Amino acid sequence: MNELEFVARLRALPLHEGARGLEDDCALIELGGETLIITHDMMAEGTHFEPEAKMSDVAFKLVAMNLSDLASKAAEPVGVLVGVTLGRDDASFVNGLREALVRFNVPLLGGDTIAATGPSTFGLTAVGRATSPRVPSRTGARAGDAVYMTGTIGCALLGFEGHEKHLTAFHRPTPRVEEGRALGPVVSAMMDISDGLLLDGWRMAKASGVTIRLNPELIPVASSQRFDDCVRWGDDYELLFTADPAAKLPVAATRIGTVEAADGDVPAYLGATALTDPGTLGYRHG
Amino acid sequence: MNELEFVARLRALPLHEGARGLEDDCALIELGGETLIITHDMMAEGTHFEPEAKMSDVAFKLVAMNLSDLASKAAEPVGVLVGVTLGRDDASFVNGLREALVRFNVPLLGGDTIAATGPSTFGLTAVGRATSPRVPSRTGARAGDAVYMTGTIGCALLGFEGHEKHLTAFHRPTPRVEEGRALGPVVSAMMDISDGLLLDGWRMAKASGVTIRLNPELIPVASSQRFDDCVRWGDDYELLFTADPAAKLPVAATRIGTVEAADGDVPAYLGATALTDPGTLGYRHG
Repeated sequence: MNELEFVARLRALPLHEGARGLEDDCALIELGGETLIITHDMMAEGTHFEPEAKMSDVAFKLVAMNLSDLASKAAEPVGVLVGVTLGRDDASFVNGLREALVRFNVPLLGGDTIAATGPSTFGLTAVGRATSPRVPSRTGARAGDAVYMTGTIGCALLGFEGHEKHLTAFHRPTPRVEEGRALGPVVSAMMDISDGLLLDGWRMAKASGVTIRLNPELIPVASSQRFDDCVRWGDDYELLFTADPAAKLPVAATRIGTVEAADGDVPAYLGATALTDPGTLGYRHG
Repeated sequence: MNELEFVARLRALPLHEGARGLEDDCALIELGGETLIITHDMMAEGTHFEPEAKMSDVAFKLVAMNLSDLASKAAEPVGVLVGVTLGRDDASFVNGLREALVRFNVPLLGGDTIAATGPSTFGLTAVGRATSPRVPSRTGARAGDAVYMTGTIGCALLGFEGHEKHLTAFHRPTPRVEEGRALGPVVSAMMDISDGLLLDGWRMAKASGVTIRLNPELIPVASSQRFDDCVRWGDDYELLFTADPAAKLPVAATRIGTVEAADGDVPAYLGATALTDPGTLGYRHG
């Protein structure tokens, strides 16, 4: 069973109201007048990292990718729980975990460690506190909104390929936690770009019931020669968001397109090119 | 690195105040005047279940064992997030997950699914809400308290060995969520018996800085011929707790011993036998 089929079956289970139909990156728990944001992402050897990867990098990225989900909800990180299969340079894993916790100023809440055979898998649960009364989601993009992104995409791709300048982008990504918090009150929709700009833009449009038109000339890519790859490669952890084009943005971001009313079956365009088949747009697991 | 060494290194990381020094089964997050309880436990093929196990049973047990941790904190379950490596009778896994969620009346909050090679691993994060102002811990046992447990231990052992009558105890354990909530205001210390009565009793005594003396004649075991195994085998998910011997208990439980002032280096006795080496007392991973 592939991931999409499996998630479709999960959607038929009893869901918490805050699960947002499993359409979003995080779940919301209302408690005592506050809202807790919670997310869980995993990494597996052979799928998300190479067998020869430094375990300190794996641990760092595991924290970063989960904090990036919190960032997309404008959440303030509270803590993380880590799930670890022991056996592969565990001391290095703890070192990378420490570096990420210190760098992003988030404490460890707990977790579980197990002995297991075969390729390693790791899970991380990140918990945050909502900072704006309306927690951003993928579903809020409205016709007439402008589409923005922070930073540049494709850096992780070039880092993966070994380009010296971009190694950090791939091995030690920075989740846009501060940017996400600042943007919370301004955005109509927000998500992180973890699986590629085109695919994630397509998903935001589908979730919002709109069509997003991206202007290829405006998208900041790490290599213009590799444009097609840069807009499809994941792991950059920048933020993609929509907002009233007249709104003053509190952080640096680039306008890369416009939200239009839903155009039949086409959730997104790149220039004049209709993006209809998500299988061609970015990174999808199994 | 084994689990104990790894956790010792985790303790040196920046910890959340609610992590209780990673000495407890759950972490606590104070929010808006309420307390959230959160725990994460994993299961791996080959370590926690046999390769031929029914995946529906694995999913059910994954939910049950995490809810048992919440039960030990007198928490009301709010929801769970599940982490799944796809590839092994995934439809059966979803069925078992559904059965557990319905049976224990807890909704799905979210999760992650990944493709991975090799043995399957699963993680579950359970979130609950504290129901008593003082959340029970392992550290509260005081000299003079009585030691109690719910139910009978060793049933899971016999179920694992194939005894018809006890198959459910092993494959479909029932976390003592209602009992835990009722006991919350009464207990001085509480934990679930997941790794064996002797080992978990030893741990409670260590955490509380006391000595626990268990009376072997009072311990309810599934097979008196197998007493030594029953008190060392895990997976029963009963509750172990201490309370004022004069306190009226709100649920059925058996008094199995007494808390004494710390007796040098001996955290626990089984009758006259000093229990000093935790390696001989129960189930320890890795």
